[in-house]
Formats: sequence, structure tokens, C-alpha cells
Amino acid sequence: MNEFELIRRYFDRPAKNAVLGVGDDAAIVRPTPGHDLHVSVDMLVEGRHFFADVDPAALGHKTLAVNLSDMAAMGAAPRWVVLAVALPHSDEAWVARFADGFFALADRFDVGVIGGDTTRGPLTLSVTVFGEAPSGRALRRNAAQEGDDVWVSGTLGLGAMALREKLAGDLKLPADALAAGLARLERPEPRVALGQGLLGLAHAAVDVSDGWFADFGHILERSNKGAELWFDALPTHPWLAERRARYPELIAAGGDDYELAFTAPAANRAAIEALGLQLGVAVSRVGRVRSPEAGVSLIDSAGRPVALQRAGYDHFA
Amino acid sequence: MNEFELIRRYFDRPAKNAVLGVGDDAAIVRPTPGHDLHVSVDMLVEGRHFFADVDPAALGHKTLAVNLSDMAAMGAAPRWVVLAVALPHSDEAWVARFADGFFALADRFDVGVIGGDTTRGPLTLSVTVFGEAPSGRALRRNAAQEGDDVWVSGTLGLGAMALREKLAGDLKLPADALAAGLARLERPEPRVALGQGLLGLAHAAVDVSDGWFADFGHILERSNKGAELWFDALPTHPWLAERRARYPELIAAGGDDYELAFTAPAANRAAIEALGLQLGVAVSRVGRVRSPEAGVSLIDSAGRPVALQRAGYDHFA
Repeated sequence: MNEFELIRRYFDRPAKNAVLGVGDDAAIVRPTPGHDLHVSVDMLVEGRHFFADVDPAALGHKTLAVNLSDMAAMGAAPRWVVLAVALPHSDEAWVARFADGFFALADRFDVGVIGGDTTRGPLTLSVTVFGEAPSGRALRRNAAQEGDDVWVSGTLGLGAMALREKLAGDLKLPADALAAGLARLERPEPRVALGQGLLGLAHAAVDVSDGWFADFGHILERSNKGAELWFDALPTHPWLAERRARYPELIAAGGDDYELAFTAPAANRAAIEALGLQLGVAVSRVGRVRSPEAGVSLIDSAGRPVALQRAGYDHFA
Repeated sequence: MNEFELIRRYFDRPAKNAVLGVGDDAAIVRPTPGHDLHVSVDMLVEGRHFFADVDPAALGHKTLAVNLSDMAAMGAAPRWVVLAVALPHSDEAWVARFADGFFALADRFDVGVIGGDTTRGPLTLSVTVFGEAPSGRALRRNAAQEGDDVWVSGTLGLGAMALREKLAGDLKLPADALAAGLARLERPEPRVALGQGLLGLAHAAVDVSDGWFADFGHILERSNKGAELWFDALPTHPWLAERRARYPELIAAGGDDYELAFTAPAANRAAIEALGLQLGVAVSRVGRVRSPEAGVSLIDSAGRPVALQRAGYDHFA
């Protein structure tokens, strides 16, 4: 089966939300009046972002999920996605399973797969997603205000602890913790509904993908603010929570969380907690934004500073 | 210099046409009311789409040019682009030159570079481009009509003849032909103004990138039409024109042309010629669309069929 047949069989489905889908020089969509378009791109490379033996269906899920997570962080509704894939060989079974995982998630969030490119090369995936939000209302990184609460959704460190067991071998996780960690690593759940629900409630938001401390730091940097951050309040898996002091990096700087970190005025505290309950997504208050002069400090519940060996993930480190 | 610094230094420029550019979870743009959005993605891999020793500035140009060519084929005005790059190592000089070539072309067509992702991996480039055209007016592949003239812009086969000299070594091009061929290979000029000018004049259009015969075939297939195609009318370089019968594949199936192939009613013949003159782009009439029952034939000026060893480029062949 050649390139065109492969694409046609697995990706040339009737595109949702589109005037014209895969199969022309470009796809055509009709933007919603009064909305801004939000665009994000991610590239995933074998051996760096995933292992060669990963289940292709899980990879299809994750490839899209990390991009939906970016839309969530803007408060945008994901609407369309295009996918470019370099494949080492024309492996129909692999493509079929990858497409299964990718389309299942796209369908669940009503995202139209409107374009693609397939070529031969080292296994590389590039996804561009675009979403819509009412004009001018997106959650930007630069909008944190002094006095804001600092929040994070869900739990941190699960993917990182599973990866650590897999790679370093110096962690021995119980079965339930390993399962929870692998699920996060392979099938992260983008916080799409939470992001949209936070429009009007939160000031600034960011997607936690490279480690919470570094990613939240982007908000502080872009907003020119400092913060007091409460390490012991960071939500994580019970197994890791018991070993919090021993593995602070897994929780605060592990990466692969795909949660939302955001800031919001204290006046919206109850509304944010109600939103989390309504959506079934935990929301935890983990600090307070302060002046840039006060700087950034990560402290435990006794007020002592918590040191991190590394703050986040650098793709060239 | 790490990933974030590399991106920031070379790609985090104030984005044109954007509410918010590089540096958040997503870029934000405001679509033009009354227009459809056209989206296309391409992935280029070292060793397949370009050589390892390519001038990075030329590669930056070409990476964007092939995508602008897709917008041209729709008759859309290119507006925004996002770029994902996997790099084998953090090579500042390479990135700087690549960005030079990429941004120079983006600036020339007033295209905003609104997002990017950089990671480590085998050299791979993925570009997603967004363009706009008045709603419902794009040039689609499926719109060819029986009796339409078949047109092609510019010249065909130049990139292919240079590539053949470089790879196979059985061609010895004179200096001017080699220079013209390398220019096409490395710095193709997308027919953006022509594509937009054809709105309302042409019925169907396609970008010629994988070989004219195969790419034009996509129009016939999607439109369910046949065609009589005139090999001797295909425009090419004078050196190749003199050897037309010996190298039919270079002209008709060579690839890397980045011209527009389109069909239009005979009534618009004079208007299309005037448009070509106005824009300084040659336009050649090279056939006629006919019924699907009549099939597709490629003939020379004596009416004899011209055989092609291969019809186009298959990325998995």
C-alpha cells in the first residue's frame, strides 16, 4: 500500500466541522464569527517523547492529547487538527492502530481531522491543533495579578514516577501506582472542559507538560510577578505523597502531567471549587502570586525552602 | 543555548497579523469576517526531501514555499504559519540561517510566523500554513468541467533535471540550465498572486509538487473527468525542450515544480493570459478536459501517445 492509499484508508474520513477535509491542496473550515482562532503545534520524536515499542493506539491518543491540552490552557474549544507523520516504513497495522487512538480522542472532543501529510523518515509526529474562544477572552500566560491564588488541576508526578521506574530502575512502584503512572504517560486526559470553564474565572493559565515548576514559571515570567508556592499542597498519587520529601522533582518538575496551572483572584475561589466538582476534576490551591521583588519561593508546610535538582524538561539537555 | 533560548532568539519575533504570537500555549489570530480558513501541512525529512548539506537558508525558504504553493493552489491569501523542527543538535548557526530564509519569504508574502516547536531528533521540518479566501470561492480539485482548458504556470522539469544530474550523473547540464534547475530546487517561487487572481476565472487548481501528470490527475480523479493533454505544449527550460522526447518524465512527472495546474472555461482564455502578463508569470494552455469515458491521454503534437515510465513521486516507493 503506497503513501496515498495509506492516507486515504486511515485518515481520509469525512471531516467534522469542515467545509472541505483531506484530499485537496488545503482543507477549508469556516471560523465562528466573534471568535479568535488559537493555534498550537507540537512535534514528537521516537526515543525522545515516546519509546519505539509504544502501543500505536496510545501514541495516537497522546499525540492529540498534548495538543488539546494546549487549547485547554487557553480556555479555547478545540475544533480542528492536522497531522504530519514520518514513518520508517509503510506499516499498515501500525497506522491503523495509531489512527484508532487518534480519532477516538478527536471524536470524543468533537475535533475535525482536516489534513495530513505522510512521508518516509524516522518516526516523527507533528500535530497542529486550532481552537476557538470568544474574541479577546483567552487565558494568557501574561495575565497573573498580584494576590491571585495559584491553582493546579488533577495530580502531578504520576507520569514521571512511572517513567523513572521504567528508565532508572531505582524506584519500585506498587501495581496501582505503576498503573496510574503508565495511564498518565500513555493516555493523558486533556483538561478541555476545565479550561473553557475557567474563562472569566481565572486570569492566567498554562499547560503543565515539561514540569509544573518550570511551566508555572512561564506565567510568572510573562506576567512579571513573583509567587510563594506550597510544595506540600501539590496534589499527587498517594504513594508518591508519602515520599514527597524524597522525590520533590518527580512531583514539582517531572513533566508529562498535562494538567492546568492557573491563577485566579481569591474572590473566585468558591466558583473554581464548584467548577472542579461539577467537572469531576480536582482543583488544588498551591500558592499565591506576589510582587516580582518578592521573588519565587517553593516552601514546605513548615515554611522551609524546597530545593529542586532540576526545574523542568529541556529538549536539548 | 538550550531549546527555549534557541526558539526565542530566532523565532520569537513580533508576529504579523496576530493578536498573540509565539510564547504562550497557543498563538491567537483573528480571522477575517466573511472568509474561509484554508489549512495545509507538509513534512520534510532530511535525505528524502532535501540533502544533509543543503544551505539552511535555502531550506528555510523552501520549507515555507512549498506550503505557500498549497495556498496558491486554493486561491487563498496565506496569512499565518507555524513551524515544528526536530534538530539533531542545538546548532545555533544552522538555526539562524534557516530562520533567515524562512522569515525572508514570510515577510515578502506578509505571512505571520505565529508558533513553533523545537525538539531534538533526526532533522525533520513540519509546516502548517493558514490562508484566507472569501467564503465558498476557493479553487478546488473537484471542480473541473468538461470542455475546460487545461493550463499550467511557469515551467516544468527544471528541478527534476538538476536533481537528475546531481543524483544519477547521466545528465550533463550546461551552466545556465543547471543554475536554473538548482534555483527551482532550492528556492521555488510559490504562485501566490496567480492563485488569488484565478478566483472567478479558473474552475479547479492543484499545486504541482510530485510531478505534473500525477498532480493534474488528482483534479481529473476528484472531478471525475478525462482529458487530452498535449505533451509538446508543456513549458520547460530551453535545454530540456530540445530533448523533450528523450526525457518526457523529467518534464511531465519530475516533481519539485511548485507551479499551478488549473482548468478554466475557454471563455476566460484572454483574461487568464492578461493575468499572466500582468503578474509576469507565463501561463500555458496544455490540454482540454473531456468526459470520463474518453479517458486521459498524453499525446505529442503529431497526436501520438507519449509514454511515461513513472507518473509521479510516491514517498513510499
